[in-house]
Amino acid sequence: MADLLEQGENRLEWARTHMPVLAAVRKELVDGGTLSGVRIGMALHTEAKTGVLALTLKEAGADIRLASCNPLSTDDAVAAALRETHRLQTYAHRGETKEEYYENLQKVLDLKPNVVIDDGGDLIGLLHTERTELLEDLFGANEETTTGINRLRAMEADGALKFPVFDVNGARMKHLFDNRYGTGQSTMDGLMTATNLVVAGKRFVVAGYGWCGRGIALRARGMGAQVIVTEVDPVRAVEAKMDGFEVMPMADAAWIADFIVTATGCKDVVDEEVLQNVKDGCVLANSGHFDNEISKPALEALTESSRVAREDVRAYAFGDGRTVYLLADGRLVNLAVGQGHPAEIMDMSFSLQALCAAHLVAHELEPRVHPVPPAIDEKVARLKLEDLGVAIDALTPEQDAYLHDWREGT
Amino acid sequence: MADLLEQGENRLEWARTHMPVLAAVRKELVDGGTLSGVRIGMALHTEAKTGVLALTLKEAGADIRLASCNPLSTDDAVAAALRETHRLQTYAHRGETKEEYYENLQKVLDLKPNVVIDDGGDLIGLLHTERTELLEDLFGANEETTTGINRLRAMEADGALKFPVFDVNGARMKHLFDNRYGTGQSTMDGLMTATNLVVAGKRFVVAGYGWCGRGIALRARGMGAQVIVTEVDPVRAVEAKMDGFEVMPMADAAWIADFIVTATGCKDVVDEEVLQNVKDGCVLANSGHFDNEISKPALEALTESSRVAREDVRAYAFGDGRTVYLLADGRLVNLAVGQGHPAEIMDMSFSLQALCAAHLVAHELEPRVHPVPPAIDEKVARLKLEDLGVAIDALTPEQDAYLHDWREGT
Amino acid sequence: MADLLEQGENRLEWARTHMPVLAAVRKELVDGGTLSGVRIGMALHTEAKTGVLALTLKEAGADIRLASCNPLSTDDAVAAALRETHRLQTYAHRGETKEEYYENLQKVLDLKPNVVIDDGGDLIGLLHTERTELLEDLFGANEETTTGINRLRAMEADGALKFPVFDVNGARMKHLFDNRYGTGQSTMDGLMTATNLVVAGKRFVVAGYGWCGRGIALRARGMGAQVIVTEVDPVRAVEAKMDGFEVMPMADAAWIADFIVTATGCKDVVDEEVLQNVKDGCVLANSGHFDNEISKPALEALTESSRVAREDVRAYAFGDGRTVYLLADGRLVNLAVGQGHPAEIMDMSFSLQALCAAHLVAHELEPRVHPVPPAIDEKVARLKLEDLGVAIDALTPEQDAYLHDWREGT
Amino acid sequence: MADLLEQGENRLEWARTHMPVLAAVRKELVDGGTLSGVRIGMALHTEAKTGVLALTLKEAGADIRLASCNPLSTDDAVAAALRETHRLQTYAHRGETKEEYYENLQKVLDLKPNVVIDDGGDLIGLLHTERTELLEDLFGANEETTTGINRLRAMEADGALKFPVFDVNGARMKHLFDNRYGTGQSTMDGLMTATNLVVAGKRFVVAGYGWCGRGIALRARGMGAQVIVTEVDPVRAVEAKMDGFEVMPMADAAWIADFIVTATGCKDVVDEEVLQNVKDGCVLANSGHFDNEISKPALEALTESSRVAREDVRAYAFGDGRTVYLLADGRLVNLAVGQGHPAEIMDMSFSLQALCAAHLVAHELEPRVHPVPPAIDEKVARLKLEDLGVAIDALTPEQDAYLHDWREGT
Repeated sequence: MADLLEQGENRLEWARTHMPVLAAVRKELVDGGTLSGVRIGMALHTEAKTGVLALTLKEAGADIRLASCNPLSTDDAVAAALRETHRLQTYAHRGETKEEYYENLQKVLDLKPNVVIDDGGDLIGLLHTERTELLEDLFGANEETTTGINRLRAMEADGALKFPVFDVNGARMKHLFDNRYGTGQSTMDGLMTATNLVVAGKRFVVAGYGWCGRGIALRARGMGAQVIVTEVDPVRAVEAKMDGFEVMPMADAAWIADFIVTATGCKDVVDEEVLQNVKDGCVLANSGHFDNEISKPALEALTESSRVAREDVRAYAFGDGRTVYLLADGRLVNLAVGQGHPAEIMDMSFSLQALCAAHLVAHELEPRVHPVPPAIDEKVARLKLEDLGVAIDALTPEQDAYLHDWREGT
Repeated sequence: MADLLEQGENRLEWARTHMPVLAAVRKELVDGGTLSGVRIGMALHTEAKTGVLALTLKEAGADIRLASCNPLSTDDAVAAALRETHRLQTYAHRGETKEEYYENLQKVLDLKPNVVIDDGGDLIGLLHTERTELLEDLFGANEETTTGINRLRAMEADGALKFPVFDVNGARMKHLFDNRYGTGQSTMDGLMTATNLVVAGKRFVVAGYGWCGRGIALRARGMGAQVIVTEVDPVRAVEAKMDGFEVMPMADAAWIADFIVTATGCKDVVDEEVLQNVKDGCVLANSGHFDNEISKPALEALTESSRVAREDVRAYAFGDGRTVYLLADGRLVNLAVGQGHPAEIMDMSFSLQALCAAHLVAHELEPRVHPVPPAIDEKVARLKLEDLGVAIDALTPEQDAYLHDWREGT
Repeated sequence: MADLLEQGENRLEWARTHMPVLAAVRKELVDGGTLSGVRIGMALHTEAKTGVLALTLKEAGADIRLASCNPLSTDDAVAAALRETHRLQTYAHRGETKEEYYENLQKVLDLKPNVVIDDGGDLIGLLHTERTELLEDLFGANEETTTGINRLRAMEADGALKFPVFDVNGARMKHLFDNRYGTGQSTMDGLMTATNLVVAGKRFVVAGYGWCGRGIALRARGMGAQVIVTEVDPVRAVEAKMDGFEVMPMADAAWIADFIVTATGCKDVVDEEVLQNVKDGCVLANSGHFDNEISKPALEALTESSRVAREDVRAYAFGDGRTVYLLADGRLVNLAVGQGHPAEIMDMSFSLQALCAAHLVAHELEPRVHPVPPAIDEKVARLKLEDLGVAIDALTPEQDAYLHDWREGT
Repeated sequence: MADLLEQGENRLEWARTHMPVLAAVRKELVDGGTLSGVRIGMALHTEAKTGVLALTLKEAGADIRLASCNPLSTDDAVAAALRETHRLQTYAHRGETKEEYYENLQKVLDLKPNVVIDDGGDLIGLLHTERTELLEDLFGANEETTTGINRLRAMEADGALKFPVFDVNGARMKHLFDNRYGTGQSTMDGLMTATNLVVAGKRFVVAGYGWCGRGIALRARGMGAQVIVTEVDPVRAVEAKMDGFEVMPMADAAWIADFIVTATGCKDVVDEEVLQNVKDGCVLANSGHFDNEISKPALEALTESSRVAREDVRAYAFGDGRTVYLLADGRLVNLAVGQGHPAEIMDMSFSLQALCAAHLVAHELEPRVHPVPPAIDEKVARLKLEDLGVAIDALTPEQDAYLHDWREGT
């Protein structure tokens, strides 16, 4: 246990050292006092960077409860250090059953939160179904990921959304970096660690060319792969093609794929038809929020026998001689195998989270999905540039006027 | 003259051969009859791809007048072929004076257009100032480029905009390809043709990390350069940095720049301070719409003598021993030196133009800047995929339902 | 122990599944009988791919002893499975002392080997110094790595080399892939796993632009870094520059480096002067064979206190407020942190090793460093293409004649 | 004519300004006097950079005659300026017949050269066949390109070579840059200028993965293409695959190719079988030395009618509805359409040429193909680094000793 605590503390310390933007935000929040006494319920991947966010909010005076937003993504060492060393109310362990997972979310809600920080929309979902009694104490929520935002947009369209939610995922300082370069790096890291297979020269199929998918595609190419993209959106398909990737339907790609990685936010992307075609030895992995992008029922239906091939790799032997390998049981490979997104990436995402939480406390907003205020985006960007030691240009008054004057022509 | 006509006709034919999406749109417009008898005034770079658009609209039954949207971007061979062989009313020649330029725009407006297709906003500007008598016949306009849209947004903010304008530049099938990959390729082509200098290993400064700037940065890197980006927007600056580029203020970049290319839509990006610092031998070029991104007054103020160093290259010798080279007199290097964007890129942009023109005729719209309808974007994308022979996936009804159901969670 | 054995066996099985070229070679060697009864002493990184090579040679009838060629690179699970399950004489564990390391090499030599497979030259060194009595039984040796070859070239120049040695490292199917893409991927994997830091946008310094260095530089760029190369060879320096990298002396690079990775085969590349300059927070790692590329004496001389910051990461706090992080105690990060080169890469390298070992048995060679026969290189390449399902062109007789006819001109 | 002379002079001046290494070499040769009175016969592409080399040798005191090494690659403006303004004996014009081409070579040989600088081996060929009487005055020759070296190797193998020849092509400062990055950039520039077609998203086939081919493949990818490589060498084929390119036989690639570019040094690479398969609209171009890589007889045999589609583009209509486009009549597209390699690239190649010519005068060498002395390679590299302002590291005496000491181990 002492070892676990030390390991957890080391990871927290390492993350904190590499989150300078959040450090600046922390100083401001501590000084400002906006979050003093505010109850914040959080469901995020319970690992080191999330720990630093939770401790930041706590240092700013908030009362915090934290659960995991995914049964497989908790870092037990970090959870132990948060709980034991930092006395933060943390309800998460790696490998939760579905029941335990929901029990933990309920415990977070038992705090009667004023602000909710969600990732995937499960906390917000509960607040609209089983825990509607909590709505009166709630100022609003932040949502971290594409999948959660898709659910919130559906709620908004149904007229079901009862409180304001910040689309943190939509902030430029979030999706341009976290979804793209965070997911890109952590997915490749997870894949390479899990398989020790070479990427160079392989046919690497990426399902989905959203921000996550293009990050994965870019990094797979950066490691030397021939990348194939599958899409349902025709504009994105043309874009992937012009970005130099091959584009084809997944059922065609399966014949030649060495790796298939899903990042769509949709279910059954690798379904029975795809698995019927899939090449012997293909490695399947998912980087999307839920573990339903690769259909495990379809996989099991085709399987004669399965076994652990390596840590985090299960081999499924089909009756016809083919074997395919599923990583991390289809859960997000970047968190289940690796250590999640790099600290400096989460530094930016979580600085947005902290500033949006404070904004929810300080402003009354309508019950809909709100974009992150541009001033918050820009603030995080300027703090990041400052930390990087990068100076940039500023418009002169004459240039600014020129850009707003429609009369000046050729 | 016969030679010129043949050359122009060859270029038109070559472009037409490589614009299959517009061919499909043409067939539809000819069959549909929407544009029959409609008067369309156009100000676009008068070269082969524009010629194919103009002839397309003419074949669809419209009455067309065409001028150039830039004094240096006309291809005289194409203009001759349009005028003589195709009897299209074309008012443009390469190297127009400012007076000739505006005279040609006026001639286009003398058509009393129902629809205006503009690039840079000069036609639309005239309609709001000198030619307000024409507003009653006008259904609306399309605007092709970022600079024009910036001016229109300023007009809209002033409450000055008198008719609906489609932001064609904002369509995904436009800016993702035309601004990024069109500008990227044609700028590099223009630079290499004008200078015959190696790009690999050079310090290549790109001013502006909008869609054009990132296309240039990507292609310069693709040719082996070390790319430095300058920006005024802090989020874009962080993005450029995370994309692996160096980021710094222009006045600092000038000390080490081998090439400086501007793509900002703003004036005086290379100003006196920058030129004070600029390295001996630096090549200056502009890919933005107007020729004021590199300040020629500032350049001339520092210059002791200037001379033609090569075709399209002028050497400016400063008193202190430094010489800098300005390409194409600071006008957009991709059109003034090269042949503009590749045909297949303009195929997509001009298919949007044709479809938006028809939409303006068929629908009454409010006097503001309108986004291109997603159905038009998607249609162009599907036609392009069809031409490429690329099939893509489609959502199953179950997947579609899943994406709109906010109740299903972990 | 059962767990360890199972884990080791899984890793061996996984590697074997992904080493199809060696499988073809194995079949040929088993059928041919060349290695029957031959005694082979091996010093290689004792992990899964090496295990498959050792078992291959054993299946071909050879008598094998295996030690590790680096005190930190043994995979204990694989070593256990080799020893217990496969009854292979294996003398290696992770974290050997220098004494244990040399004891293990001596045990391998006690086999009185006919053939030696070495990696770094320590076995071959012992055969020339302490164990010269074994020379009479020895047909020759293979050397796997650049560092070993450098030592052998020095021996050859001194007239000291007593038996033939194949420069396996110099084979095209070895250094083009193993040194470049093997080292490139495994180094990045090790770095990302050890640090969980983002690579994109970082200043990443690579010392040495040999085959290993250029692999690392390429992959670091592929993950989004701004890469800086340091070199002592002026031609390579120009090449790195034209490849788009920044080039500068290490002492200058240190000021701005976020990561420094050495891959030179030389000692004290990061020395006291470099460490005097190094930026606070810099991560130091080595991918070269020996742990003397980053000078640990110099590092300790500057250090006030050090501590474990994370698994495989030690933080060195200088008196002046700076902290730097050394990975894996300066030993090769790709093997000490990660799992070494991907299986498919080692498949090619180790197929060369097996074929060269057989060649040493079947042919008498002079006591010097020999290039791998082109026919062996080509054979491995053709087997690899066959496994990949890639067909290539062949010269027609007319083309072949043309290429050898100097009389045909313009 | 005045215009032509001025244009030629401008191009010479521009090239000279961008050839700083040759400037340093020129100073040394002028001061040293080695070339004083030496007769040098040259057959190189007669354009601006070659002009600077010829004038350099002249300024160093040599007596020079220059012809072109390819009937289509002369820049007439430069040739005029050399002849009229600089009084250099220049025998070359663009579009020479085969007879004129050989007459010009003969005129160069009439100089009774002491040193020959050849490109492609035609001059050297004549000296071994029709002009053997000149051998007694000849010290030796330099050969510039892979094709010429292939011919010389064949001569050497036949025992036919009568004088020493420097393999300038084999120098590191030559083929790493000129063949790879020179050919890469100039080929892409030529292709884009000739066609104005987009490269991004296109299937771009490169025949040959030697130094030229890999430069073209890299730059085509850098412009966004999906690149396919064809090869006859299995090791290079594996390398291309691991570099992330698709590899297949040319006859298969033809079905899907948008562009096919040959760079093999071999004939009939695009032969009748390939043309039978080729996709409608495919663009064919050659970057190899001779115009026989794409078989024009095979092309004409399949053609029903052909016409000029654009400048430097001929359309061949097959009977079956397909049309393919051949650039520059199959001659090297980078010189025939564009302006050849960038000046800074030729600066390095021609500095080697000048130093090797001086070396031939100063040293008596055996009649065989000689590698360029490493000291010359290194000298050019150091001059280039100096011009770039790039400093590099140097080995300490301790490091140098370490690299030569085989006794120091783990």
